[in-house]
Amino acid sequence: MADQRFYTKTEPKNLEELASIAGADLHGKPDFEVEDVASLDLATGKDISFLDNAKYKDAFKTTKAGACIISYSMAEFAPQGCQLLISKTPYKAYALIAQAFYPANFPPAKISEAAHIDKSAVIAKGCIIEAGAVIGEGVKLGEGCWIEPNAVIGKNVEIGKNSRIGANASISHTIIGEGTRLYPGVRIGQDGFGFAIDLAGHVKVPQLGRVIIGDHVEIGANSCIDRGAGPDTLIGDGTWIDNCVQIGHNVNIGRGCVIVAQAGIAGSTTLKDYVVIAAQGGVAGHLTIGQGTQIAAQSGIMQDLPAGSKVMGSPAMPIKQHLRQVAYLKKLISRN
Amino acid sequence: MADQRFYTKTEPKNLEELASIAGADLHGKPDFEVEDVASLDLATGKDISFLDNAKYKDAFKTTKAGACIISYSMAEFAPQGCQLLISKTPYKAYALIAQAFYPANFPPAKISEAAHIDKSAVIAKGCIIEAGAVIGEGVKLGEGCWIEPNAVIGKNVEIGKNSRIGANASISHTIIGEGTRLYPGVRIGQDGFGFAIDLAGHVKVPQLGRVIIGDHVEIGANSCIDRGAGPDTLIGDGTWIDNCVQIGHNVNIGRGCVIVAQAGIAGSTTLKDYVVIAAQGGVAGHLTIGQGTQIAAQSGIMQDLPAGSKVMGSPAMPIKQHLRQVAYLKKLISRN
Amino acid sequence: MADQRFYTKTEPKNLEELASIAGADLHGKPDFEVEDVASLDLATGKDISFLDNAKYKDAFKTTKAGACIISYSMAEFAPQGCQLLISKTPYKAYALIAQAFYPANFPPAKISEAAHIDKSAVIAKGCIIEAGAVIGEGVKLGEGCWIEPNAVIGKNVEIGKNSRIGANASISHTIIGEGTRLYPGVRIGQDGFGFAIDLAGHVKVPQLGRVIIGDHVEIGANSCIDRGAGPDTLIGDGTWIDNCVQIGHNVNIGRGCVIVAQAGIAGSTTLKDYVVIAAQGGVAGHLTIGQGTQIAAQSGIMQDLPAGSKVMGSPAMPIKQHLRQVAYLKKLISRN
Repeated sequence: MADQRFYTKTEPKNLEELASIAGADLHGKPDFEVEDVASLDLATGKDISFLDNAKYKDAFKTTKAGACIISYSMAEFAPQGCQLLISKTPYKAYALIAQAFYPANFPPAKISEAAHIDKSAVIAKGCIIEAGAVIGEGVKLGEGCWIEPNAVIGKNVEIGKNSRIGANASISHTIIGEGTRLYPGVRIGQDGFGFAIDLAGHVKVPQLGRVIIGDHVEIGANSCIDRGAGPDTLIGDGTWIDNCVQIGHNVNIGRGCVIVAQAGIAGSTTLKDYVVIAAQGGVAGHLTIGQGTQIAAQSGIMQDLPAGSKVMGSPAMPIKQHLRQVAYLKKLISRN
Repeated sequence: MADQRFYTKTEPKNLEELASIAGADLHGKPDFEVEDVASLDLATGKDISFLDNAKYKDAFKTTKAGACIISYSMAEFAPQGCQLLISKTPYKAYALIAQAFYPANFPPAKISEAAHIDKSAVIAKGCIIEAGAVIGEGVKLGEGCWIEPNAVIGKNVEIGKNSRIGANASISHTIIGEGTRLYPGVRIGQDGFGFAIDLAGHVKVPQLGRVIIGDHVEIGANSCIDRGAGPDTLIGDGTWIDNCVQIGHNVNIGRGCVIVAQAGIAGSTTLKDYVVIAAQGGVAGHLTIGQGTQIAAQSGIMQDLPAGSKVMGSPAMPIKQHLRQVAYLKKLISRN
Repeated sequence: MADQRFYTKTEPKNLEELASIAGADLHGKPDFEVEDVASLDLATGKDISFLDNAKYKDAFKTTKAGACIISYSMAEFAPQGCQLLISKTPYKAYALIAQAFYPANFPPAKISEAAHIDKSAVIAKGCIIEAGAVIGEGVKLGEGCWIEPNAVIGKNVEIGKNSRIGANASISHTIIGEGTRLYPGVRIGQDGFGFAIDLAGHVKVPQLGRVIIGDHVEIGANSCIDRGAGPDTLIGDGTWIDNCVQIGHNVNIGRGCVIVAQAGIAGSTTLKDYVVIAAQGGVAGHLTIGQGTQIAAQSGIMQDLPAGSKVMGSPAMPIKQHLRQVAYLKKLISRN
């Protein structure tokens, strides 16, 4: 069970309630009481667990969990006595149940006396602003925002309601939507890397755009998003960005994209909706990546990709072709 | 036009004045008045735009910009009535004009009462020091420096005049020149990664050097530069470093280099002047990279490179050879 | 010699004393007095230097160092009059001697009045807490900890004695051992990148674990370690992590590992003891990497590796095989 120093659990819930929370089908006793969530190997008879990755099927067969969320096809492997919730999306169902046990509540509203807030800033009700946070001239915070310690919010930045800005983050020239979370150490809105190369001294091109971040976006720790050079840099609603990601000026990211740790996107590139870039992937500038494209880890993209592409390698190619190439080379070398 | 919450524009200027600012040839009405800069697609009759990348020639043909900066060879594609400034370096000319409309002025000098400044620090006149900044013992700031909120300047660090240190940056064991800009979250001068590997516990090698940063250098957000182990880590005048770049101890970078986001340079490597490393490139330690070398994105350098090299791949090879290899493999696989 | 603005040197020491400190054999005058450490090329007659990398043998032959630490096989190349300390591990011997000249003492204990410390925090004796540091509710600091300016220590975090937390670092949901050092800008304990992908909006999976960091660990500037999703993220005793490294949730790193700059490890992967990952390497999730495995720079690991593996490439293969493949391709292209 989660360390009580860091997490507060809600009351036990019965299986009928959990099925409703998860949108899952109940195959068990409606009044079976569940006290907590746990992984298959650590769960006890009072816990609910889940199976989503077939790699863990053996752990499921022997789990001591009192209840388990699974897909229909796994039901035959259930250990005796294990209550089942059947879902087409067991991981999502688990997520909803875990949220019910451990809701992500913000702490009570409070403005620290050790925060530095410009008197022209407009702070809506219900905000938390912690020690050392610096809120600049003309900043607007919507209701219920949470600004963590030592974060720096620059002049005239606007942040929508219920958004959260992590410790030591810095933001300038940016408009942020609602329910968005920026993790500690993010750098948002600084000048893009724009200059005319010149042997006598590179000449800076003023960066005159903004960063516009949608609703329910997550941006991971120490990631950087430069503001636009003239157009804006855009991050669409519901896009999730992991840690240490770099996003250049004028990049336009659609809705629901997933960008994994240490990936980078160069300036003026567009990602349509639901694009996934795995860890350490790189996309060159001035490209358009079609909707739903999936880019494997460490891949390098140097040209436009049509919707639904699945690519791998540096330079990237269709994933099947890349795997064939890897296998062919391996065979070739072993012969020589 | 740029968002007035974030940018302040200067007065309109006539074309003769702009030609002079840009060092460009005027092909139009000297008294044509320009109010702003804008991209080709968004410009109106009162704006000046530019064409530098042939990819955007079609946008030039149909632009509504009142004036445009182009190279001589593009003049024939100009839309009717568009005033022209002809330059051999249109992007640089645009940069200078945009700087005239949006000068990068620092705010008025002011030392925040919420900054923490050691009484032994020497602060020249005209500095801006913002809330939460920590200025350590013996620090020397030249005239007109700007220290943003929550930046930390360690003991005895020296910063030349008109330099700017971003929010939440931290600097120790470092001497910085004039007109240099460190972006938010940079980490400069911490110990290099130096230790003797030992199964009983790695043994730290004291890192006894400094970081010496020249004039007019830019170091992007969340980039890290370790101090030297004995020699210093050196960053030459006019070098531009993008976000999330890692530079190891004893690295010696010349003048006018360009190091793009997420690239890394291992310890004790020398980059001569005007080297370019594209995004996510890596250079191993103890190497010398010749003047003007260009390293493509995601490349991995494992040996010295002569001046003027153009390389790609991991391990890197001359770019033409790499492209031939990629093409050859593609053909080979398609046959098998 | 090291810049006295940044470093304080101890008294001169004679060679007998230094041999004892280094566990080396003395081949010279026991009472020969040494004043400082220096590199082979910069050393004077009052300095001690070392030779560890055969690449620098020529510098050794002509060094003016008064004394030098070398392996037995190099003794024949010593310049006349150079006092010798013979060691099987010259670099470690140098490290110990350099530590004696430049001990890594913490400054005198002092709690800054400009730090923000929750009244429920338990601060053992001898701590240094600098300006702008934020120490949350219920935090426990062991004896002699050093919290640098503007670091943020979240609710109920525990830090063992003599550990040091760098400027602008942020830590939450974490337990840290003794003598451990976190560099400036590290991000430890934030939520892992866990969510169920859903076109209607990705669903966050509560991250309910912690980060547990052992004794004598080093974690470099701007590196990120996410907390576990249910299990904990674990960093074993004596592991050294460089700058800009990303470590995902539930990762389990053993003792004495070395993870070089900009490398990344995806969620739920286990590294056994003494694994080395070179710069920009990536390891996929849910893998086990055997003890003592060495992963070359920019490599990509997509499957489990047995103990003692030495791999290179993306996808990675045994290093010899990779080098053969690179050489074979080069030859093939030159023929075609």
